[in-house]
Amino acid sequence: MSNRWAYVRWKLREPFAEWLGMLVLILIGIGATCQTKISEGTYGNYTNLMFAWGYAVTLAIYISGGVSGGHINPVITICLAMFRGFPWRMVPRYILAQIFGAFCGAAILYGNYKVALEKYDPEMKLYGTNASAPLFITMPSQEFGDGMVLMIDLYREVIATGILHVVVLALGDENNAPPGAGLGAFITGLTIIALGMSQGWISGYAINPARDLGPRIFLWFMGYGAVVWHHDSWWWLNGAILSTFAGGILGCLLYDVFIFGGDVSFVNFP
Amino acid sequence: MSNRWAYVRWKLREPFAEWLGMLVLILIGIGATCQTKISEGTYGNYTNLMFAWGYAVTLAIYISGGVSGGHINPVITICLAMFRGFPWRMVPRYILAQIFGAFCGAAILYGNYKVALEKYDPEMKLYGTNASAPLFITMPSQEFGDGMVLMIDLYREVIATGILHVVVLALGDENNAPPGAGLGAFITGLTIIALGMSQGWISGYAINPARDLGPRIFLWFMGYGAVVWHHDSWWWLNGAILSTFAGGILGCLLYDVFIFGGDVSFVNFP
Amino acid sequence: MSNRWAYVRWKLREPFAEWLGMLVLILIGIGATCQTKISEGTYGNYTNLMFAWGYAVTLAIYISGGVSGGHINPVITICLAMFRGFPWRMVPRYILAQIFGAFCGAAILYGNYKVALEKYDPEMKLYGTNASAPLFITMPSQEFGDGMVLMIDLYREVIATGILHVVVLALGDENNAPPGAGLGAFITGLTIIALGMSQGWISGYAINPARDLGPRIFLWFMGYGAVVWHHDSWWWLNGAILSTFAGGILGCLLYDVFIFGGDVSFVNFP
Amino acid sequence: MSNRWAYVRWKLREPFAEWLGMLVLILIGIGATCQTKISEGTYGNYTNLMFAWGYAVTLAIYISGGVSGGHINPVITICLAMFRGFPWRMVPRYILAQIFGAFCGAAILYGNYKVALEKYDPEMKLYGTNASAPLFITMPSQEFGDGMVLMIDLYREVIATGILHVVVLALGDENNAPPGAGLGAFITGLTIIALGMSQGWISGYAINPARDLGPRIFLWFMGYGAVVWHHDSWWWLNGAILSTFAGGILGCLLYDVFIFGGDVSFVNFP
Repeated sequence: MSNRWAYVRWKLREPFAEWLGMLVLILIGIGATCQTKISEGTYGNYTNLMFAWGYAVTLAIYISGGVSGGHINPVITICLAMFRGFPWRMVPRYILAQIFGAFCGAAILYGNYKVALEKYDPEMKLYGTNASAPLFITMPSQEFGDGMVLMIDLYREVIATGILHVVVLALGDENNAPPGAGLGAFITGLTIIALGMSQGWISGYAINPARDLGPRIFLWFMGYGAVVWHHDSWWWLNGAILSTFAGGILGCLLYDVFIFGGDVSFVNFP
Repeated sequence: MSNRWAYVRWKLREPFAEWLGMLVLILIGIGATCQTKISEGTYGNYTNLMFAWGYAVTLAIYISGGVSGGHINPVITICLAMFRGFPWRMVPRYILAQIFGAFCGAAILYGNYKVALEKYDPEMKLYGTNASAPLFITMPSQEFGDGMVLMIDLYREVIATGILHVVVLALGDENNAPPGAGLGAFITGLTIIALGMSQGWISGYAINPARDLGPRIFLWFMGYGAVVWHHDSWWWLNGAILSTFAGGILGCLLYDVFIFGGDVSFVNFP
Repeated sequence: MSNRWAYVRWKLREPFAEWLGMLVLILIGIGATCQTKISEGTYGNYTNLMFAWGYAVTLAIYISGGVSGGHINPVITICLAMFRGFPWRMVPRYILAQIFGAFCGAAILYGNYKVALEKYDPEMKLYGTNASAPLFITMPSQEFGDGMVLMIDLYREVIATGILHVVVLALGDENNAPPGAGLGAFITGLTIIALGMSQGWISGYAINPARDLGPRIFLWFMGYGAVVWHHDSWWWLNGAILSTFAGGILGCLLYDVFIFGGDVSFVNFP
Repeated sequence: MSNRWAYVRWKLREPFAEWLGMLVLILIGIGATCQTKISEGTYGNYTNLMFAWGYAVTLAIYISGGVSGGHINPVITICLAMFRGFPWRMVPRYILAQIFGAFCGAAILYGNYKVALEKYDPEMKLYGTNASAPLFITMPSQEFGDGMVLMIDLYREVIATGILHVVVLALGDENNAPPGAGLGAFITGLTIIALGMSQGWISGYAINPARDLGPRIFLWFMGYGAVVWHHDSWWWLNGAILSTFAGGILGCLLYDVFIFGGDVSFVNFP
């Protein structure tokens, strides 16, 4: 009743689920960004975009939740390992699967929008009107353009990812009052909507390193140049990775120090 | 305690349910399209439209779910027959009921908007401002008007329908973590909203052949001419039917190859 | 442990619940209409308005659902009496409570907006820009202004109320697949949102005679004149009452003839 | 398995939970206000703002619900003490925690937006375009600027808080039909959305004294001047505190007099 592939699938079920969830997350999220921006608001606006990203997270968790736990975010994977006993040996395969899912999603969308993108931004720009790179990767806002701003953006990324992790831990804490009936994924999506509406500006609103890194590697492969790595003082590293990790850890500490009573967290070790 | 009609209703309960669900789906979905477009944005915008289509699907599933399973889409019917053991002998009556429901919905709306449509588009056009046919049927986008574009549109239709089917199989997989409390219909509606916000442009966003074919047959009856069949390189066949089927099968394969462990899928046959 | 008032409250619990639910429905729904229109779109738009009416219905049902069943609509009360064995002797008190709740809600809002309304429309108009009557009552659309239109508007009201009743019966049919966990009220709210987005134009979108009649009586008391009764060919009677009843009965017939198998409906009597 | 801090956390678990919930509520709610207003509508509009505040309340309740009951609002705390037997000795710590949470949230956001705020409003104004104080505190509307208006605004605040409390009591009444599956927090969020869409204008839409008072104290510390206390005839006291309490008590009375049958309410004492 089984076959060789079923064995492979069973052994790799968690990375497969994370990969497929992340793929759908990117297809919907970056798909909505492309649709809204390239159509210049005819087929979407900022409100749409926020709902699309939120529902994308909801669907990604439904696709993977029962198999891999539905992390779909390297920060969540690492924070669960640090604070909730998620096995560290699983972490690398989760993160690789997440980044590869985001890479594949960006590639499929790029192929789909190729003709449109060649008209929209033939020069493959990172800045300015009709820049196409910001459709795929996160970037700090350019509105308040002086040196101070990067610090602000990093700060913001920490806040947003911190809120996300407070909520994620609350929704998974059986001693609190989480939603039942398999609706945690829905409420997590609402969290993403609320964060986008409240923290989506100024900072590029990464909150998920894989969502940034996968498409960024793809853009680099496509010839956007080394600038995708060193723009905005290495934003990809400082903003999308280090700040989101700092925010995730801070959020988990807040929840575990002030709310969580379970002994699985090191905060509660004697 | 029963009567003759009750016997007929019992024998035909599944096609009746699919028919009534599809009727309501079209009354709400195409109704919202008409309202938004004919009022020129006074009574709706793109955001409204996406929510209306999504909630329409939710309601259609609640109307038919307990009786017919709430497919409301020929691609889902055929994919469930291919991948989940839905009996093939039921497929024709499901599909006919779905197409006929969409036909009836279009007819009721056309009657309702008749006066308005005669002012809005007295020439019964397919293209241009105030064209009335696109209110009822799906069409590829005209924005990037060269030969390449049709391929892009077909590609997009495959992606959108593929995502839908990954989600539909996940929401029906008891070994994953689907929503309980009868809320699968609600989450399926969110999927439609997310797809419309992210994949609704460029392609005409069919993802459901009956939603296109029923109203198309009605427009043909009303005298829009044979152009409804051969416009855009036979879009009705290539886009709304073949591409959506290709997408549905691709999505089901993705889910069954990488996630699904049940032995009802032929992917898991030894 | 009890007192005299508790006895009164127990005897009149259903009309009290319907009254309070309707009061809140009107405070939110017509409140949102006033806010959106008087602020000229600064504090709301058509999308907001649709969500506000939908959520208003959800909340009204939560306020009254466990006590009176949460009808909050005379058409639903009468249709449940006709098709689901709701006792006819309860019907008058339900309908009076609903109309009185809507009347009270309109009065509270009118008092609240009095200063604003005196600036917005000192002449107490029914038509034209800055007309204040349409903030409170439903009226057929004036866009396509010839004799044909009233028929269209009535037709539309029938469709909208019909869809509502198909959904209401489906959500209450345990042999179908209704939402659990007390979320029927939420899905009913989504139905109102979807109807507003798809059928809210052209017709004034009553679907609920009490929502129209209560505020209408209030406007008449306030001196808007007898025109509130005979405008648009007695719309209050033909549109807001007769058409909604016709629609409700039609929707129930559709559901019971094609879907419902229970013997509580006269459609299934032998 | 426990430690000293765990003991402190256990003793202070309710104020800690209220504090963290309120902190997140403010970070999302006022964060969305700042983003929408400072970006001048590019990154949000009134619809976004309403959803952000509503979802913020939902998330705040999920963060604190299982520990403190998720009041996140001094009016709710006091009303539950008056009408539902919530222990009065807990009230002060709840209210202090709520105000302090709002204070902290305002401080974090102010720090985050410092550079932007210095460009947006270098004069730290309360009125006029680019005034920054209304981003943080509630104020009566200035549109209908004569003496009558303050009364109207107070009236409105009473209505909005009254509706909120009718709904909150209904959602907590097991003899009514509240949502199950831990979704009360979600429906409470919808209530906030509906209130913002229908009562958010004219009045500053406080409905929560801590949401106003915490940030107000912070602005005073930051040097906005004593005007934050005496503007608009002591709005902070009359509007944000006294009117919301009046509304809360009125709403609870309405529910308990007309609906509630339990003997925990003094309305039902013999």
